[in-house]
Amino acid sequence: MPNRTVFFVSDGTGITAETFGNAILNQFEANLHRVRLPFTDSVDKAHTVVRQINHAAMIDNKRPIVFLTLANTEVLRVISDNCSGMLMDMFGTFVHPLEEELGLKSNHRIGRFSDSSKSEEYQSRIEAINFSLEHDDGQSNRDLEGSDVILIGVSRSGKTPTSLYLAMQYGLKASNYPLIPEDFERQDLPAVLKAQRKKLFGLTIQPERLSEIRNERRPNSKYASLANCRHEVKEAEAMMRRSGIRWLSTTTKSIEEISTTILQELRPERLTY
Amino acid sequence: MPNRTVFFVSDGTGITAETFGNAILNQFEANLHRVRLPFTDSVDKAHTVVRQINHAAMIDNKRPIVFLTLANTEVLRVISDNCSGMLMDMFGTFVHPLEEELGLKSNHRIGRFSDSSKSEEYQSRIEAINFSLEHDDGQSNRDLEGSDVILIGVSRSGKTPTSLYLAMQYGLKASNYPLIPEDFERQDLPAVLKAQRKKLFGLTIQPERLSEIRNERRPNSKYASLANCRHEVKEAEAMMRRSGIRWLSTTTKSIEEISTTILQELRPERLTY
Repeated sequence: MPNRTVFFVSDGTGITAETFGNAILNQFEANLHRVRLPFTDSVDKAHTVVRQINHAAMIDNKRPIVFLTLANTEVLRVISDNCSGMLMDMFGTFVHPLEEELGLKSNHRIGRFSDSSKSEEYQSRIEAINFSLEHDDGQSNRDLEGSDVILIGVSRSGKTPTSLYLAMQYGLKASNYPLIPEDFERQDLPAVLKAQRKKLFGLTIQPERLSEIRNERRPNSKYASLANCRHEVKEAEAMMRRSGIRWLSTTTKSIEEISTTILQELRPERLTY
Repeated sequence: MPNRTVFFVSDGTGITAETFGNAILNQFEANLHRVRLPFTDSVDKAHTVVRQINHAAMIDNKRPIVFLTLANTEVLRVISDNCSGMLMDMFGTFVHPLEEELGLKSNHRIGRFSDSSKSEEYQSRIEAINFSLEHDDGQSNRDLEGSDVILIGVSRSGKTPTSLYLAMQYGLKASNYPLIPEDFERQDLPAVLKAQRKKLFGLTIQPERLSEIRNERRPNSKYASLANCRHEVKEAEAMMRRSGIRWLSTTTKSIEEISTTILQELRPERLTY
């Protein structure tokens, strides 16, 4: 049974509050009950939130931990004046020293996502997602040269989720293209990829793990057999080595780690903006 | 010309540092040059980072702003002892008071993503992404009842990117199903959706915006014409109203806002944690 409640309170989606709050909480071996309270953008809603937090305090007999990302100062005041939780004011803590440093007043706009549906950055993220979907698994060669990145690797090496993450998080047009037994017989990259060599990045994976993943899909198939996985991985790695293509092993990496590494390797200029 | 440099330094991917740092910086009308420095996980790399920050300080003639998410205390010490930037220690600021409150020492693990490729939460996110892809645009009815959420709406109302975001951010198995002219003629939901009514959520959009989006795809088609978009949107909204399906308009909302709203409305069981 969790013995302490954590609230993520925001006047926006609360995604920042929650992602960051969890990054901090994950450093503790604590048994916590988490509650998201997004769109807390009026004084009325602030009072409801206060009641909810104070109720948890009573039930748990411990003060709740409350991560706040509130640009709305009125809402913040209601909560800080009335709630019995331990407040972690994630904006205020950093905004105040920054106001001093920059010699500017903050405009109290909400983080990354407000009014964003019309912004250029947002539109290019959505475009990138659509592009990546259309160029998933070598489905389309149309405008392949428009890709920022083309991931290659054997089936189930992690190309699809990584492409989508690159598109969603970084707005990169990420295609992906499978390396298949025919390519290994020919001992050569698919012709369409050769003109795009600079954009290629390879994903590989331990044959044992690959066999596990493929067995979930097609149990006891040749496709999933350890012998076949060993063969495909060996051939794919040899091909990438011969062609001078950078690659990494996804076996113990998350899509976030893989994506950030690809960005660093292939598009270092995108690390500054 | 930007006149101040901002660094996001992390021993992990730096995605948390960057997302959160930008949520804060977006509250200022400042002209900033941003630099991501992920995977700063050794003392050597820390010294390189210090040189980079101090160089920017000299060039800008202003101290850089440095957002840090470092679980590695040695790396943190090198940077805080030697760098001339304004340090925003995003973990330490909140971890120390939490250690006191919880009566626990933090274990200095990196946020959400470390060792995560093996975690149950991570595996279920990847599974959800695959599920959502397989159930994009009504492609497959297989195991539709395994969905946590099924988005419905006319073509290009925002279903696909929202489904993928729900899968990627929240690990939800989000299917999506188009409402098409045949459904409007029959004046009824597709049969396969009726059994899943509780999981349905509708997306709609202003006909003018829809026509714009469709015109990018198929210029001057009947499909993209304003008259047809008006007709489809009207019919879709009428159908959702008749069937008692909750829905929202995506016209001015980001996928983050749409997803958070859906979560709040449908409250899928998987998401209480």
